Amino acid sequence: MVKALEWVDGARPCLRLIDQTLLPAEEKYIDISDVAGVIDAVKRLVVRGAPALGAVGAYGVAIALLQAEREKWTKSELQENITAIRNARPTAVNLAWGVDQVYGAVTQGYDLVLAKARNIEAQDTASNRHLSRLGADWLVEKLGKRKLRVLTHCNTGALATTSWGTAYGVIHELYQRGLIELVYADETRPLLQGSRLTAYELTKDGIPYVIEPDGAAASTITRGLVDFAIIGADRIAANGDSANKIGSLSLGLAAKYAGIPFLVAAPFSTVDLETKSGEEIEIEERSGTELKEFNGMPVSPSCADTYNPAFDVTPHDLITAIITDKGVFEPSKSSEGEIFKKIEN
Amino acid sequence: MVKALEWVDGARPCLRLIDQTLLPAEEKYIDISDVAGVIDAVKRLVVRGAPALGAVGAYGVAIALLQAEREKWTKSELQENITAIRNARPTAVNLAWGVDQVYGAVTQGYDLVLAKARNIEAQDTASNRHLSRLGADWLVEKLGKRKLRVLTHCNTGALATTSWGTAYGVIHELYQRGLIELVYADETRPLLQGSRLTAYELTKDGIPYVIEPDGAAASTITRGLVDFAIIGADRIAANGDSANKIGSLSLGLAAKYAGIPFLVAAPFSTVDLETKSGEEIEIEERSGTELKEFNGMPVSPSCADTYNPAFDVTPHDLITAIITDKGVFEPSKSSEGEIFKKIEN
Repeated sequence: MVKALEWVDGARPCLRLIDQTLLPAEEKYIDISDVAGVIDAVKRLVVRGAPALGAVGAYGVAIALLQAEREKWTKSELQENITAIRNARPTAVNLAWGVDQVYGAVTQGYDLVLAKARNIEAQDTASNRHLSRLGADWLVEKLGKRKLRVLTHCNTGALATTSWGTAYGVIHELYQRGLIELVYADETRPLLQGSRLTAYELTKDGIPYVIEPDGAAASTITRGLVDFAIIGADRIAANGDSANKIGSLSLGLAAKYAGIPFLVAAPFSTVDLETKSGEEIEIEERSGTELKEFNGMPVSPSCADTYNPAFDVTPHDLITAIITDKGVFEPSKSSEGEIFKKIEN
Repeated sequence: MVKALEWVDGARPCLRLIDQTLLPAEEKYIDISDVAGVIDAVKRLVVRGAPALGAVGAYGVAIALLQAEREKWTKSELQENITAIRNARPTAVNLAWGVDQVYGAVTQGYDLVLAKARNIEAQDTASNRHLSRLGADWLVEKLGKRKLRVLTHCNTGALATTSWGTAYGVIHELYQRGLIELVYADETRPLLQGSRLTAYELTKDGIPYVIEPDGAAASTITRGLVDFAIIGADRIAANGDSANKIGSLSLGLAAKYAGIPFLVAAPFSTVDLETKSGEEIEIEERSGTELKEFNGMPVSPSCADTYNPAFDVTPHDLITAIITDKGVFEPSKSSEGEIFKKIEN
């Protein structure tokens, strides 16, 4: 199975990433052993996907500690570098979460930080397996034990996580139970994570699929071509509002209109109880070059301005269920702000 | 001003089209003087946009008559060729409408057919000017005389029509009245009519705009970044359901959710009273190559299957107003099937 990231021990330990900007054409690995490399990989989306970024945040601190030793950084230099990793992508709460999980161990040194980072990776894989089973169980209960057609957006598989996947993991679990008829995979502009990465994983896993333009998602749903839609999340607010790859909201709006389930699947670490609602989520805006050029070829007037937000926020009233490793939460069945109450206590 | 099409008289009369597949990088014109050329141009989207296709259908019959004379076709050969033009793109009712408008004159010969085709072109330009004023008046009445921010999808300007444009025409009219602050232009995958063509026209007309990915449209609307959204139409059913470029439905769903006006602007010839509702509209499915390759470079696994519908249908309950040259129709203010009653009688 393809791995988004892997820690490689040795004379100069490094974080090995598959360069997702080159998939599916080329399977190239990058070995990273300094902070600049971590930040560059995160910013360029060599590695992306909320859960994968959690592990990268944690391993990034281990890398910072090794570099600090090699280059004899002061405490404040180390601190600055760790903060820089933490802030490399503002909307992705998991990146900061990963950093914070190991941060307390920094004074105790590299070995403990690395052990904690490894634990985050193992924990994410276990969470994904668990939430995938919970999601599949929930769907079978609601829709019956039959072949299902599903629509998904962006990439939430092994490449987006430490392994197995979230929304993709639920689909994979259903497929292993013999319950998937067809997957509609949105191509996911501008960076085509759907047609490049999800299609690559679906092909490897032997799951039948079609790629569609993002603009087709709403009518695929309203025309009755799918039984449910499912996405991952980059951040989930306390009231259930969910930030995910730009284009996700349209699936929620269409699913509500058509009366089919719309699910968000993510490890519980994606829930940010400090963020009250989606309005508080900062939306990262990315370079217009992603829209204006394709592989270096201009596709619009050179003087054109752009609006290229990385994420949108789906309000909780459009979400049928949030599938996590700590249980399935149904926003419509809780009063606002009480959705995750059970877990907090 | 750029012209999508122009009839050129001479020793061998021809229909001159600007090749829209090459814009904005290259302004290349193609002179067409046989039926195969007409069909190829329509299928390859050298010329597209419902009103432009109406004129192309009519001029296409004139071309068929000239070719019939040159090549001594039988009556049934002529008939077959006219039918082939009529069916070159199934969803685009205007193409067939253009053919039908001049068909009755075929037995009376080329001169009359050409005169009728020229009349269709002139009529479309006049319709666009008129509906644009009606649309701008309606918006000023509903939203007040203030600078407006608007979202649009695909291309509905001079390139999509004989001149001036429909949804784009309304925006242009507002701009000339000093009432446009900013246009959000969806890039419109897979063929990028927004980032290539609408951006090209907006640049030429000096109207401020940004290009956004199609997936951003819903959140641009729900975040309150625009005051209204407006699209064109390829076919409007008797109950107001409107077929337009894939990705349009998402604007309607988001506008309804956000409570802002969502307008469809098209000449009344786009209304097909024989089509009772959107369910009867055949949705053209296009080649997967449009999704899987970009300028010849693969962007997805070569074995990937695709779903690439050219259009979606926005149900009439999501449409605030249909702007035509015969008046503004508000689906929510009429009982179903009665929207266009006033005009029929």
